[in-house]
Amino acid sequence: MSDRVDDVQRWFTEFGRHAYTTVTPMALDGLEGWSRDRHTGNIHHHSGKFFTIEGLSAQAPHGPVPRWTQPIINQPEVGVLGLLVKETDGVLRALVQAKVEPGNRNGLQLAPTVQATRSNYTRVHQGRAVPYLEYFRNHRQHRVIADVRQSEQGAWFYRKRNRNMVVETVEDVELRDGFTWLSLGELYAMLAQEDRVNMDLRSVLSCLPLAAPGLDTVLRSDGTGFHGALVRSCRPASGARHPLGELLNWITDVRTRTDVRADRIPLDALDGWRRTQGSITHESGQFFSVIGVDVAAGGREVSHWTQPMVRPEGQGVIALLVGRIDGVLHALLHARAEPGYLDVAELAPTVQCIPDSLEVLPAAARPPILDTVLSADPSDIRFDTVLSEEGGRFYHALSRYMIVETDPAGIDHPDFRWIAVHQLMELLPHSHYLNVQARSLVTCLHSLLGSSGATRSTAGVEGS
Amino acid sequence: MSDRVDDVQRWFTEFGRHAYTTVTPMALDGLEGWSRDRHTGNIHHHSGKFFTIEGLSAQAPHGPVPRWTQPIINQPEVGVLGLLVKETDGVLRALVQAKVEPGNRNGLQLAPTVQATRSNYTRVHQGRAVPYLEYFRNHRQHRVIADVRQSEQGAWFYRKRNRNMVVETVEDVELRDGFTWLSLGELYAMLAQEDRVNMDLRSVLSCLPLAAPGLDTVLRSDGTGFHGALVRSCRPASGARHPLGELLNWITDVRTRTDVRADRIPLDALDGWRRTQGSITHESGQFFSVIGVDVAAGGREVSHWTQPMVRPEGQGVIALLVGRIDGVLHALLHARAEPGYLDVAELAPTVQCIPDSLEVLPAAARPPILDTVLSADPSDIRFDTVLSEEGGRFYHALSRYMIVETDPAGIDHPDFRWIAVHQLMELLPHSHYLNVQARSLVTCLHSLLGSSGATRSTAGVEGS
Repeated sequence: MSDRVDDVQRWFTEFGRHAYTTVTPMALDGLEGWSRDRHTGNIHHHSGKFFTIEGLSAQAPHGPVPRWTQPIINQPEVGVLGLLVKETDGVLRALVQAKVEPGNRNGLQLAPTVQATRSNYTRVHQGRAVPYLEYFRNHRQHRVIADVRQSEQGAWFYRKRNRNMVVETVEDVELRDGFTWLSLGELYAMLAQEDRVNMDLRSVLSCLPLAAPGLDTVLRSDGTGFHGALVRSCRPASGARHPLGELLNWITDVRTRTDVRADRIPLDALDGWRRTQGSITHESGQFFSVIGVDVAAGGREVSHWTQPMVRPEGQGVIALLVGRIDGVLHALLHARAEPGYLDVAELAPTVQCIPDSLEVLPAAARPPILDTVLSADPSDIRFDTVLSEEGGRFYHALSRYMIVETDPAGIDHPDFRWIAVHQLMELLPHSHYLNVQARSLVTCLHSLLGSSGATRSTAGVEGS
Repeated sequence: MSDRVDDVQRWFTEFGRHAYTTVTPMALDGLEGWSRDRHTGNIHHHSGKFFTIEGLSAQAPHGPVPRWTQPIINQPEVGVLGLLVKETDGVLRALVQAKVEPGNRNGLQLAPTVQATRSNYTRVHQGRAVPYLEYFRNHRQHRVIADVRQSEQGAWFYRKRNRNMVVETVEDVELRDGFTWLSLGELYAMLAQEDRVNMDLRSVLSCLPLAAPGLDTVLRSDGTGFHGALVRSCRPASGARHPLGELLNWITDVRTRTDVRADRIPLDALDGWRRTQGSITHESGQFFSVIGVDVAAGGREVSHWTQPMVRPEGQGVIALLVGRIDGVLHALLHARAEPGYLDVAELAPTVQCIPDSLEVLPAAARPPILDTVLSADPSDIRFDTVLSEEGGRFYHALSRYMIVETDPAGIDHPDFRWIAVHQLMELLPHSHYLNVQARSLVTCLHSLLGSSGATRSTAGVEGS
């Protein structure tokens, strides 16, 4: 497999010569095609399309910060993240593209077959056609393996959702420039590389059921240790600490008893944020900023545009604690409220924060299990790779994604539950259960199903 | 069983002597404790609690009516509809109450154990305690059989949801005045009586999984004809026309391609509605009105209040077409958009309308299968009872609830799908799939599982 990974690296490097962007931060007030509403200060595009930057007033009376205001991205359109898969010679392969986005620190990343906004999706004949979109628009001619609208960052987006689709075809598919077919094993090997598999691809991969054709082959081995516990965790027959009904009861309970309120307000009405001609920053310098960028795309397709972006101030830590309960691996999920969620709270990783921001927040805002994760013994770290959030809206939004194994005994908190992988897979066909960070980590967990150490960035823990 | 039904009738009549209300329509502007906002015209209670009557601007560019405005009830609090159940002598019984609500045409109806607003639920020690609420607040001491937030009428409520809970206890439960234990068979027999089982009880009963203890006994028989097809439809092993993944794909597709937009606007900004001191009515006289009522409750607990209510103009038809596919009963569900839904569209009955209103709407607004239902041969009618919507907000909101069997061949429409009962049960633990009218009809379908004709209002079709 490592040969193939090297091939992909070469293809990346080669393709990068023909598709690259130069991204230069610039002043918000200088953006071309974007303007500031004279009444609200909201930043919108002249066409009325794309997205707007607005203000949000959030109230969470029982949380560590009872009320705050912040900028937020309002992008009401539901786009499509589509992954085309095909079985050849008994192996399921996915068609992925090498995609440049302005927020990528490293230029090209691996993206799903299609990343299209609804404007692309419904009016495809205006403007440049999106390659392979027909497989997701005319999906009745193919086999739809997954199709679910899932939320994105509730801290930065107001009720943003994308349609995550996996479609299987048996047709011959023309291979276009910038696209390649990768087996799941190859994809998972790429996932272990720093900042290589983009957020949209990680999200849509999490929605791929483990029962998909070809995927069961990775479940063949049933060893001891971590890997055996993970394989058992993927099988419904293995059971779990809590029956699914108990988990749904807990989620409903958290959603009912969590008082959160989020109201859109004018961007000029923010409190505690500094707006200059150049950017919008929090007066502490923490959390995130809204900046402008100038994007010049070179290579085969030349284009130029400017746009606002959200830039997180500091690298995040997004970690899943896992542990073996009766020989079955369980992950510790957090029922987390974010102001931009459509439905109060979703299941989030055990830890999800930007540690730098915690310095200016009350102590109660510190994730209870952050220190456990950061001080984990290297031999307990099952996945540890820096990955980034969506590069179309977020500028260099990097986080350390980690899966850390621990002894689950004694970890008991009303906002957390130990959940088996097969239960996460049972929730994933429905909207609004797993947040985007948790979906990324589900894909990272799946990547550990490969029995060789090659799919993991941390070696030497097999069979422990 | 009919003896027990007679007992319940006597208990109802007897209890009605001690608990009754006199409800008198009155002018909106004369309501005590309610006032009209001077800027918006919105009607709100002085305490800021309960609910408000606001305006809604709806846009559905591809629907038969591309845009309209209407009054809407905004009640953001999530209340609890709780049903306490207990197994005695191998029979599961539910604790129900005889409840008076101002919108009930007939005074008392059977209601769930608890119908509590969130104010009751979280601050129970202020004001009169809600009986049995502790079983639903301290539910960890009991077995939670169902716990899911479900929507209510999206045509009249803005994003209203209630928490539907079924909790099983093994404790001795004190029986309070106005409450009684009924077996499911007895409840289902009551459901066949006109306007006797209230909407909240029908909704929470639909969330009771068929795998609940004791419930499998009603599934014992596996006859021929309609009943056999219904029993098979309750069993996942029977299969279905469409696998669940196909149904989720269809729901996601409808939700993505349906353009609906609902914006809250001032009540004074409505177009096509007449507001007098007395009421708010549509200029056609159709759809619904907002009226005031004066409520004087007599008997043991005397109280008096006034409130606004929504009064539908005309009796509704809410019907489910069912048919046998490979010997398994399927129901024809409609993916229906309503402006008050949190998430675009939910699964609705085959037909859901107020026929009188259709006279002032474009022909395309007529439900495609209404005539099939209204002209059904009496021998094909499996359920046919007038039931009402929630009596706390809706005044005499009566509809003819029907289940009609037909030959499913040839009925094929992109917004409709044939779905087996076990698939509906698989969706019901999750929010926002089945609307409140469909949930009522699921309960009506369950009521037909009883093998004797006593549970049905239409006799003589067994074994056909």
